[in-house]
Amino acid sequence: MIDKGKVRVGNKPLNDYLISAALLFNQGASKVVLVGKGNNISKAVALYNTLKDRMGEAIKLRDVRIGSEEVKGKIVSFIEIEVERNY
Amino acid sequence: MIDKGKVRVGNKPLNDYLISAALLFNQGASKVVLVGKGNNISKAVALYNTLKDRMGEAIKLRDVRIGSEEVKGKIVSFIEIEVERNY
Repeated sequence: MIDKGKVRVGNKPLNDYLISAALLFNQGASKVVLVGKGNNISKAVALYNTLKDRMGEAIKLRDVRIGSEEVKGKIVSFIEIEVERNY
Repeated sequence: MIDKGKVRVGNKPLNDYLISAALLFNQGASKVVLVGKGNNISKAVALYNTLKDRMGEAIKLRDVRIGSEEVKGKIVSFIEIEVERNY
């Protein structure tokens, strides 16, 4: 049983992350955070939209956080999309 | 005098949008919404971070909205980052 899951969106196809997120909810996670950095921020938003499109009322957008952090001396933007299970 | 401004992030260099946002605040806008669609979502977040880095306490993140819309029959993701002037 997982309370809170995290999906880090990288360079794999969108469907891989869609499956990861769906499995986390299936395993009982009440919240899943979709994380994207740099150019993958757009993909994280696309992932949320696809998830919402597929799961509809079963999930709810709880919070969207944006910011930047230093990774190996470089400033990188990030997004954290917090999605809540609604059932 | 403008109450609310909007900067649509497209394919131009980031600095162009940084200037647009700064000018809107200078013209008296109390809120500026940074809008990015599709692959430009990442750039809109980078714009917010650069603006925050340059303007510091002078601006405050008010809201981040994400979603999707249909443009010419295609589903496109978007982000709207609402920034408030803090002075």
